[in-house]
Amino acid sequence: MIYFDNAATTLPSSSALCDAEKFNKEFYFNPSALYRGGLKNASEIKAAREYILRSVGASLTDYELMFTSCGSESDNCAVFGAVKRGVFVTSKGEHAAIFRSFNELKNRNIKTEFIDLNTDGTIDEQKLFDYVSENKTDFVSIVHVNNETGGINDINAISERLKKINPALIFHSDGVQAYGKIPYRLGKSVDLYSISAHKINGLKGVGALIKRRKTNLSPLIFGGGQENGLRSGTENIFGIKVFEYAAREKFENLDKTFDKVNKINKYIREHIDKNLFYIISSESASPFILTVSAKGLKGEILMHSLEERDIVVGNGSACSSKKRFSRVIEACGYKAEILDGVIRLSFTGANTMDEAEIFVKIFNDECLKLKRIIR
Amino acid sequence: MIYFDNAATTLPSSSALCDAEKFNKEFYFNPSALYRGGLKNASEIKAAREYILRSVGASLTDYELMFTSCGSESDNCAVFGAVKRGVFVTSKGEHAAIFRSFNELKNRNIKTEFIDLNTDGTIDEQKLFDYVSENKTDFVSIVHVNNETGGINDINAISERLKKINPALIFHSDGVQAYGKIPYRLGKSVDLYSISAHKINGLKGVGALIKRRKTNLSPLIFGGGQENGLRSGTENIFGIKVFEYAAREKFENLDKTFDKVNKINKYIREHIDKNLFYIISSESASPFILTVSAKGLKGEILMHSLEERDIVVGNGSACSSKKRFSRVIEACGYKAEILDGVIRLSFTGANTMDEAEIFVKIFNDECLKLKRIIR
Repeated sequence: MIYFDNAATTLPSSSALCDAEKFNKEFYFNPSALYRGGLKNASEIKAAREYILRSVGASLTDYELMFTSCGSESDNCAVFGAVKRGVFVTSKGEHAAIFRSFNELKNRNIKTEFIDLNTDGTIDEQKLFDYVSENKTDFVSIVHVNNETGGINDINAISERLKKINPALIFHSDGVQAYGKIPYRLGKSVDLYSISAHKINGLKGVGALIKRRKTNLSPLIFGGGQENGLRSGTENIFGIKVFEYAAREKFENLDKTFDKVNKINKYIREHIDKNLFYIISSESASPFILTVSAKGLKGEILMHSLEERDIVVGNGSACSSKKRFSRVIEACGYKAEILDGVIRLSFTGANTMDEAEIFVKIFNDECLKLKRIIR
Repeated sequence: MIYFDNAATTLPSSSALCDAEKFNKEFYFNPSALYRGGLKNASEIKAAREYILRSVGASLTDYELMFTSCGSESDNCAVFGAVKRGVFVTSKGEHAAIFRSFNELKNRNIKTEFIDLNTDGTIDEQKLFDYVSENKTDFVSIVHVNNETGGINDINAISERLKKINPALIFHSDGVQAYGKIPYRLGKSVDLYSISAHKINGLKGVGALIKRRKTNLSPLIFGGGQENGLRSGTENIFGIKVFEYAAREKFENLDKTFDKVNKINKYIREHIDKNLFYIISSESASPFILTVSAKGLKGEILMHSLEERDIVVGNGSACSSKKRFSRVIEACGYKAEILDGVIRLSFTGANTMDEAEIFVKIFNDECLKLKRIIR
């Protein structure tokens, strides 16, 4: 099987799983317990916390990290926990976890603004800066790597510029499709940053929110006071350690993997039939995501026919699969013919050039065949 | 090692882990994806959902179940999601996930009431009924099995009586220490019921909230719309399947395990030295929890000296380990001498009578030794 839907989820790393197995089989103790087994697990979680912070260059003096159950929870914690009232600004290119949280703010009569996108899915920066200059803004959330186009927002530069306009605003970014994939060091104006384990060959059910210590956050989940009081619930020691180990594997090979995936991406870009496909992702996008449109064909139909050939691709974000069109690609300015045909290819370090070669052939063939049948 | 802290967390079932392994190694697909692997996983989650509902006798017509990341999240979803304003009532014997959520309601200027306990940790029912008769109450949350004393509240009878007083109120119960342990069928007046996987030999990081379909709930986490829109975030297919498999093992052996644990509990009750220990848990409590006090001694000291003999016990709830006294045992009416010495023994089907015999001897010995040293 060729699996090109790694932005939806990834195969958990077998070595990370294997190394963490002991936390289910032997060291299953509650990390909040006061006996040795509990204390050991608490220190194992601390090590995971510190590794992940260091992996984005976040100093332990200025930053802390709370583990959550997923990227969506991290995003919700940021949106609902950092600022209680005021003006909230985001982009039209956000993952549903931000987009729908902002809709909920709107339902609560909080002023929200969704800034327009460029055609590659990045935010129209000028519109953002203009809006924030004209409206006293309290909270801004801009996705780091657009999960549907791969478009990269330069969140460090954006957040610095925003803080020059209004030093008091809180800046959050959803880094789920960036973390462990593209080279990045957390900028000093980024207050909150969401990441997720299962997008980097960790397990589903674990995420984290990195936060500046000076940024106040009220919890979304109250209880036993775990995660420094920010997120209650018995710590998922197994999932957290798999996250750490998977992250270590990613960062040890970050540049090598980036180059490899870049080559795969470029090869597919070059070799897919331009009469059949329109390429939505720009060349400056994250190489881990390549979104194209089988213009005039329904993406879902092509996806299913690829499945018959043992190739798995995505059509838009798996998280919002009920609408006809992708809200995000639509916001990039595309019309029905392009929107209908969206296919998202997304890669991981385990993918190979051989797969890319096989894929391109079948991708072109199946698309042509389907277009002939349908027309 | 003798592990008697199973109310804090349990050893994950190796057979459940083994059966679910394929969801990490082969069927890791995103359950929201529209291709075969995704659809298969969605149906696997549906099967888990339905099994767990059936396991408490909840009809699929009247009830639904949302998977969460833990019991605490389930509790928070109930408290913050079911009713937006009005009068909220709970007991002084709740887990921190309810207790601190109610404190948060209080901070938000919502009227809350904490009903007194009996000495065994169960709620003073008359006081509850009196309060609800005198105050138009919107939401009531009463723990099923008290996690610190094992005291069982008859939540079916309590909720029926409450609904006679006010049919419109929403009744929630935290069933984390009851589910898969004591025989129970969900009563028709229980609207919301929280459960957790890692307390029944499943994994940390998975819980569920059972709800009556007609009970409205607004989400705590917004996003991709998973769990029927009630709880967004990529579904933790592996954790959910381990939960299902662990639950199946529990329910296949429920009566047998109950009897076995009951014998262990009774044996320890009978054989601990009554000059050294005061027994807090009543004989009608859940046999899975036996809380005693090494009166005049600090529980933590005894806990550590037992650890040296390879015996792990709890001292109060692992989730709220920072205060000197247990808030719940204090609410049972005990004074400092008893409160200081609290030790919670909690069992699982894997514990044996041999362990109970070895334990009692060492427990009595160590306590006597420590008391001699200290006095």
